[in-house]
Amino acid sequence: MTTAEETLTPELLERLTAVRTAARALRAATAETKDRVLRAAATLLEERAPAILRANAEDVAEVDRGPRKPGAAAFRDRLLLDDARIALMAEGLRQVAALADPVGEVVESRTLEGGLRVRRVRSPLGVIFMIFESRPNVAVEAFSLAFKAGNALLLRGGKESMRTTAVLYEVLHFALSSQRMPPDVLWGITDPDRGLTETLLRQKRWIDVVVPRGGEGLIDFVVRNSSIPIIKNDRGLCHVYVHADADLDAAVRVIENAKTQRPGVCNAMETLLVHAGAAAALLPALHTRLSGAAAPHPVEWLGCPRTLRLLEGRPLVAPAGAATFDTEHLDYRMSCRVVDSFEEAVEHIELHGSRHSEAILTRSEGLARRFQSEVDAAAVYWNASTRFTDGFTLGLGGELGISTQKLHVRGPVGLRELTSVRWLMEGEGHVRG
Amino acid sequence: MTTAEETLTPELLERLTAVRTAARALRAATAETKDRVLRAAATLLEERAPAILRANAEDVAEVDRGPRKPGAAAFRDRLLLDDARIALMAEGLRQVAALADPVGEVVESRTLEGGLRVRRVRSPLGVIFMIFESRPNVAVEAFSLAFKAGNALLLRGGKESMRTTAVLYEVLHFALSSQRMPPDVLWGITDPDRGLTETLLRQKRWIDVVVPRGGEGLIDFVVRNSSIPIIKNDRGLCHVYVHADADLDAAVRVIENAKTQRPGVCNAMETLLVHAGAAAALLPALHTRLSGAAAPHPVEWLGCPRTLRLLEGRPLVAPAGAATFDTEHLDYRMSCRVVDSFEEAVEHIELHGSRHSEAILTRSEGLARRFQSEVDAAAVYWNASTRFTDGFTLGLGGELGISTQKLHVRGPVGLRELTSVRWLMEGEGHVRG
Repeated sequence: MTTAEETLTPELLERLTAVRTAARALRAATAETKDRVLRAAATLLEERAPAILRANAEDVAEVDRGPRKPGAAAFRDRLLLDDARIALMAEGLRQVAALADPVGEVVESRTLEGGLRVRRVRSPLGVIFMIFESRPNVAVEAFSLAFKAGNALLLRGGKESMRTTAVLYEVLHFALSSQRMPPDVLWGITDPDRGLTETLLRQKRWIDVVVPRGGEGLIDFVVRNSSIPIIKNDRGLCHVYVHADADLDAAVRVIENAKTQRPGVCNAMETLLVHAGAAAALLPALHTRLSGAAAPHPVEWLGCPRTLRLLEGRPLVAPAGAATFDTEHLDYRMSCRVVDSFEEAVEHIELHGSRHSEAILTRSEGLARRFQSEVDAAAVYWNASTRFTDGFTLGLGGELGISTQKLHVRGPVGLRELTSVRWLMEGEGHVRG
Repeated sequence: MTTAEETLTPELLERLTAVRTAARALRAATAETKDRVLRAAATLLEERAPAILRANAEDVAEVDRGPRKPGAAAFRDRLLLDDARIALMAEGLRQVAALADPVGEVVESRTLEGGLRVRRVRSPLGVIFMIFESRPNVAVEAFSLAFKAGNALLLRGGKESMRTTAVLYEVLHFALSSQRMPPDVLWGITDPDRGLTETLLRQKRWIDVVVPRGGEGLIDFVVRNSSIPIIKNDRGLCHVYVHADADLDAAVRVIENAKTQRPGVCNAMETLLVHAGAAAALLPALHTRLSGAAAPHPVEWLGCPRTLRLLEGRPLVAPAGAATFDTEHLDYRMSCRVVDSFEEAVEHIELHGSRHSEAILTRSEGLARRFQSEVDAAAVYWNASTRFTDGFTLGLGGELGISTQKLHVRGPVGLRELTSVRWLMEGEGHVRG
């Protein structure tokens, strides 16, 4: 028993024991039972929409009364629920219910010399502790995926959404009880004390995996304090590199999509790298499209000296600063650098990229293959927008986040990524020689 | 840039940059080149055996001069090399060279609606930092697997084997240079300062995965100090549970194998659980076999009160103490407890097991399936010895260790487990709608 465990209060020990026991029951649950719970939760969410919206209005009102911070409008928007967003949550629950159960999938099956039969079987991870910020609907998405994959879940949302999430947890607990599943498979933490989170991050006996999902501050806090393995949903500092031989019309379309279709998400482009041989033709046309009078949301540019020269006299163009190429803008703003070679582009991405999604636009298959081999990101694109890195789009049935680490999973964390593979053996008194 | 990175000395920064650069070259290396390096290393090991044995003799002599600690004989034995052990190392290198290269394996391939082509391709993890104790041959095994899977490797062995490992690193570097591979893909750390290890454990920008392999002290040290994801090779506290309906002749054979075939390894049985309905028939016969006059290495028993009663008057039987059932003996010693039910056995394993390898002996398929579902270990056996949990035996081509965590890999860490899967996309100017 470690020191950390000895400091647990009896209440906490009891709670964690209950979660572990519930996780064991869930591990053995059939797909049918789990899907009934998810569909019941969808119906309950719709029925209880008025109560959810009332609690959410109180959360939003409190944020409105507080001090005005930078990014407050975007923050408020992520916090806010309405009927349409509740309908989307319910729809998400039904979609996950319709997916195949990953638990029990036989990944490999074979007989060893000597006759021992060996199967590798997909199994739940166990108990997952997810810490998230602001968007209360993440609670429902996370529950649906973790639960369907057979895992008990501890959820700790931002304090700004605590009233909303408290009602969502009630709904999910009611759905669990209605199908005779132990409600302890979900512990929705409504205690805003950070000390409890710190204590939980040390309980490796009780918690198998920690999933932080939020800004850099949250991720750093979790990495520093956790002694439990982590699936990290880190930032996305994604690049598009346009080689000298690229189709420039396609390049304008792809860059516009990667930058502006939804700039606040992690798979949006943050930095454009352009080969010197394409810059003079590409950048003015691209600027007109993204930042000209006809652009619906004009994009600001932070450019290297050569970019500035090529766009001289145009609006919304400023010099890149020391931190520009390490900044995830998450907004209608982009960094731009002209490079002299493929190698310089790869080097830039190695130095500044977050190993999330990276793209090359080129007519050369050989160069594209080199890029895909040398750029070590979770997703590497040839002649396409970075925006496809997404669990729904890639057919994983949603995602708990997008991993930028290399262990366990790279890219979207879907149902299957919330399991791991165990070895099951059968013999007739087999012994090792 | 984090604080930890700012404290790097210029020398360390240069070294880590060199490793990262070498890792990129290795990522693109062909299987043929990698296999040539491994075979060259095998030949060089054999040629340089006298130098290796001289360095090893100095390491052993220093241990012999030091204070006599408990377990010193086993420790000395693990440290000691001879011609046969060097031949085994060379043979291991040639075996890994003969295995299929996991890098580039296409795990999945498909075309999304809209025509974007998607492949999931196995790729190296990047830079691995392995910390190990005492057995110097681990350095060669670890290098062969990490290198073949395309990863650069930092190796930090125990200070007792530093002279031996220094010569082994020279041999491996020479093999790399002989095939024009950058020697920086292997950094054999011969600086015994623990401060360097602590600094490295915080360099998540430069190191992708940490693999500690050793005793609990080492594992705890790494878990506490690392901000890099870990593949943990933890202890193995493995159980065999004999149900009331088990074939008792087979049970004696399986338990003897699980306990005594090689008691110092992590997949050996530490605790025997026996259903009350089988205990009176099983335990005396088992005691005679394991601890009687004819036993080659008599086994000591630490038993619960019912075990003591059933074995009254027999030698080598002592009462279990408070810590008995949490102890990994790694020796000719076993814990034994009589239980009243299947549930009590599962509960015991849940509380005391290390989620490594667990076995049930029963004639009931239904009960065996329940055991395999409810006991959440990396490997769960029905009617077989726990000793099969091993990378060579299971066809993984060796192992870097055996993981008891749930992320990334459970059980033996082979070649494939030293890679992860990336997404590679190809389009013709595809954008997301």
